[in-house]
Amino acid sequence: MMIKVGIVGYGNLGRGVELSLKQNPDFELIAVFTRRDPKTLELVDNSVKKDHIDNILAYKGLIDVMILCGGSKSDLPVQAPLIAKDFCFVDSFDTHSDIPRYYQELDEILKANNNTGLISSGWDPGLFSINRLLFESILPVGNHYTFWGDGVSQGHSDAIRKVKGVKYACQYTVPVKETLEAVRSGTSKNFSTKEKHRRVCFVVTESIDEQVRIEQEIKTMPAYFADYDTEVNFISETDYHKNHNKMPHGGFVIHNGITGEKAENKHLLEFALRLDSNPEFTASVVVCYARAVYKLSKAKDFGCKTVFDVPLAYLSAKSPEELRKVLL
Amino acid sequence: MMIKVGIVGYGNLGRGVELSLKQNPDFELIAVFTRRDPKTLELVDNSVKKDHIDNILAYKGLIDVMILCGGSKSDLPVQAPLIAKDFCFVDSFDTHSDIPRYYQELDEILKANNNTGLISSGWDPGLFSINRLLFESILPVGNHYTFWGDGVSQGHSDAIRKVKGVKYACQYTVPVKETLEAVRSGTSKNFSTKEKHRRVCFVVTESIDEQVRIEQEIKTMPAYFADYDTEVNFISETDYHKNHNKMPHGGFVIHNGITGEKAENKHLLEFALRLDSNPEFTASVVVCYARAVYKLSKAKDFGCKTVFDVPLAYLSAKSPEELRKVLL
Repeated sequence: MMIKVGIVGYGNLGRGVELSLKQNPDFELIAVFTRRDPKTLELVDNSVKKDHIDNILAYKGLIDVMILCGGSKSDLPVQAPLIAKDFCFVDSFDTHSDIPRYYQELDEILKANNNTGLISSGWDPGLFSINRLLFESILPVGNHYTFWGDGVSQGHSDAIRKVKGVKYACQYTVPVKETLEAVRSGTSKNFSTKEKHRRVCFVVTESIDEQVRIEQEIKTMPAYFADYDTEVNFISETDYHKNHNKMPHGGFVIHNGITGEKAENKHLLEFALRLDSNPEFTASVVVCYARAVYKLSKAKDFGCKTVFDVPLAYLSAKSPEELRKVLL
Repeated sequence: MMIKVGIVGYGNLGRGVELSLKQNPDFELIAVFTRRDPKTLELVDNSVKKDHIDNILAYKGLIDVMILCGGSKSDLPVQAPLIAKDFCFVDSFDTHSDIPRYYQELDEILKANNNTGLISSGWDPGLFSINRLLFESILPVGNHYTFWGDGVSQGHSDAIRKVKGVKYACQYTVPVKETLEAVRSGTSKNFSTKEKHRRVCFVVTESIDEQVRIEQEIKTMPAYFADYDTEVNFISETDYHKNHNKMPHGGFVIHNGITGEKAENKHLLEFALRLDSNPEFTASVVVCYARAVYKLSKAKDFGCKTVFDVPLAYLSAKSPEELRKVLL
């Protein structure tokens, strides 16, 4: 079985998908689609076909699953409903609050056209969602907590870069150690965002003279930093390019639950990720769910799906028999 | 929706299931079945109906899912094939090497009778299996490692109790910290069992005089201890009853994987459990999968299933809409 896929959108995530496909021999990359001039794309493997997204319909019947690698803000809400008419697809739509509406819209289109689409794969939403569901279903008397980091937040880094006099900036979201430990010790307290995460910034400025003002502007920036403990480190351009050029991330889903006739037994469940490259890892999860989309569509299970709807065996390249023998 | 269940076998696991059902308001416990004289059973809630297992057929049509709480060695291989003819069921069969045969036998019976059965739920096999599958499917270039403990091994504790002069004994399986750290640092080495786990024993003896011989006998016991670093601690009867009366367990599934054009990015995925009561936690997992069996059977998805075959939404008491809104 070879699963024929296309990549739609070639930024960090699209490149991660191309790399992940190379690690999975049951996939064949048919083409990469872009809104730019296809000739300008530099793929990892430049022998792969590149085409303009306007020509995508010519690939109907030739591609089993489209892997959508656009952003959740403006790309996916436009592209997914169009693609869902003619292709099965997977995406990593991550605007949590808009998921129910997005799901409904796509479910109708997909069902009307006998296609299967899986939205919001990745790690949060995605793997973290799976664990939240699993943990609270197993131990309903309990609490789950999600922490993100240590990891780069693109949005917060961008916000710092807009401060006058800032040349480069990188912002790390860091879980507060004491809160993490309190959760691991079984607390059931509700924590504020400030109690759960702090913000650590590395900033290169145009001149040293303005650093007092810049630090003040960052720390008091509403929504982004004012409500957090924020640490601002001024560093050299050399240091910046040497130590802050990766996109690490990660996080934890922790659930503490209670059982027993007298609620005497505590249980701690934890799922943790530590990632050198957020886009490459997210891409690996998305590719894995592209395999599930393929299997769901072959089983004529059409419509819109999420990570909650997929039997886990569908994620594996191994047969059900092999899975039971080797991994169970 | 109320899911009507029966408990078959009332040891530590059966009692854990009764406790877990009280935390899940969508279940109704119809009866507890035993091979003993039902009158001798002391349930958590003694108003629940108790019956002899020989009368189980009288409940056909009245119970949606039988929760089998017998042992994997001699109970389940006999009970499950009989029960599968007339009931849907869930069990926690954990003889890894016998799973393919057990699955095949039950699949045929279940399909012939339009019933659904799910085998080998719990945490290993079970939750740990899920994570092994998930991790290697996402990052196929990588290695996963399973560690058990700190936790009581019933089999090893029993083996010590058979040594002459031993009054009480409790054996803890403990992951070797250095190996755990090596795995977390991204090693791809294969470790021997001795390198992964050590064995810590707490022993009460009839007399102090024989402790040298007893320690020697334990440490050299083939299969159980000879191949491990074993620590023997002699303690008082008071200490034993005060500090070693629980059944804690836990463990880790850790996967380190690599992505990137030059394999330059490392990722660490970890799933960890720390459990005060192994039987009560296992029971909570089994109950959660009983809910999935109910939903599978309502969807006419008959035959034998494992944790790999269940869409995770089936584990939750929440509706798919609510799950997408709240947990995704």
